[in-house]
Amino acid sequence: MAGRAGVVGTGLIGGSIGMALRRQGWHVSGVDLDPVRAARALDLGALDAVGRDPHADVTFVATPVGSVAELSRAVLEAGTGVVTDVGSVKGPIVRAVGDARFVGGHPMAGSEQEGVDGARADLFEGRLTVLTPTPQTNASALERASNFWRALGSRVCEVDPHTHDRAVGVTSHVPHAVASALAAALPDDWRKFCATGFRDTTRVAAGDPALWAAIFRDNREGVLDALDRLTGQLTAFRHALETDDVATLMDLLIRGKENRDALGT
Amino acid sequence: MAGRAGVVGTGLIGGSIGMALRRQGWHVSGVDLDPVRAARALDLGALDAVGRDPHADVTFVATPVGSVAELSRAVLEAGTGVVTDVGSVKGPIVRAVGDARFVGGHPMAGSEQEGVDGARADLFEGRLTVLTPTPQTNASALERASNFWRALGSRVCEVDPHTHDRAVGVTSHVPHAVASALAAALPDDWRKFCATGFRDTTRVAAGDPALWAAIFRDNREGVLDALDRLTGQLTAFRHALETDDVATLMDLLIRGKENRDALGT
Repeated sequence: MAGRAGVVGTGLIGGSIGMALRRQGWHVSGVDLDPVRAARALDLGALDAVGRDPHADVTFVATPVGSVAELSRAVLEAGTGVVTDVGSVKGPIVRAVGDARFVGGHPMAGSEQEGVDGARADLFEGRLTVLTPTPQTNASALERASNFWRALGSRVCEVDPHTHDRAVGVTSHVPHAVASALAAALPDDWRKFCATGFRDTTRVAAGDPALWAAIFRDNREGVLDALDRLTGQLTAFRHALETDDVATLMDLLIRGKENRDALGT
Repeated sequence: MAGRAGVVGTGLIGGSIGMALRRQGWHVSGVDLDPVRAARALDLGALDAVGRDPHADVTFVATPVGSVAELSRAVLEAGTGVVTDVGSVKGPIVRAVGDARFVGGHPMAGSEQEGVDGARADLFEGRLTVLTPTPQTNASALERASNFWRALGSRVCEVDPHTHDRAVGVTSHVPHAVASALAAALPDDWRKFCATGFRDTTRVAAGDPALWAAIFRDNREGVLDALDRLTGQLTAFRHALETDDVATLMDLLIRGKENRDALGT
């Protein structure tokens, strides 16, 4: 089962992919825009070699969303292996690559803003990776991509790129926008009134603004749609509170609790 | 310094108060609407005795916001000690009690919905407790209340009830409403797309709907005001995204990150 893999972008995710594959006997080559980061990945045991491997069976492109399509196309042109990625938005990438050997991926794990020093072989253990094939995707490439992600310890599901982007608009992008808005709306002298609730609710706002601005722009339609969905809920809440409509207030809170409880801790 | 204390409501907060005071040699009596819970607090070492102590130097009323005022008045009528509470909304309670020996309190710790089994003596260690005196408050009662809270390991600050309620509208109540709305807006079949970001952002939505409905209604003005503040931020975000105004988008994200980073982990 073990073979040759390439990693483009050796940060937290790319480094973790390298570590997980090497642990299973794969040969892993990796490159990064920042040579210091690639050298660090080698030092940490995430890579066997720094450099491109044209004979890689699979290459994981683990760079910020803006550069995934271009880098994926370059890998596809230089070799015959399958290429997959980890971008948070799939529609634009899948369209821009437009290749039967490319299978868009999005592991529901980790966080783009951390460096290779946070990498660990078990980052994908038991997590879900969403693959986003299209009618154009080669069936064997899809099967191989699916097996590669499973080799990392990940569970795998398939969904079309459009549905993926609308879903993560709701589950990731708008929560980030809201966390950021809550944090931005906090006056300095009220900071002392913040307890664990505020900290939890706004934690993701500490993410890299440039990375997130790119994600929002790449998924503009999905984010705007999810934002309207949220605003609808907040408007209903506001109206219920203003008119002291306790039944509606309770209904909204109970639905929120039920959905949150269903997720587990 | 140690003396006699009363606790009304022996849940997580009341139980933790009892444990912290007993550790310092105080005699602690406690009552609860639910006799099983009071007996459990006794078993767990949070109380010396179940019952009211008319000679208590201080009584902590640690019940849901809706019953604090009435229970506080009963304690004040039956004895000569100072009374303080832990309610999340202060204006209505302070107004309804209207007694010079009552000093409203709000410890920025714990969570109302957990039971006495989660109680621990160090719950207030290093946390801030906000006291909300009014011009009517007896100066010696305020000083004593302040010392009682410090005896629990808490830092103490003073602010008027109105400012407190507006601040926690921003730092606690609207974050809860938003978490609840985000969770409520999640379709069941998109649950698999939820990673740690969604979990963190919506964690507080698991809180008790009835308790939170009471908090929202008690702080209606503060919550509506804080909600408008948040909606303003979200509207600016939406407009920036829709018009691809990257500078404004980045500005909002950077401000959110700076404010969140200032809070620490």
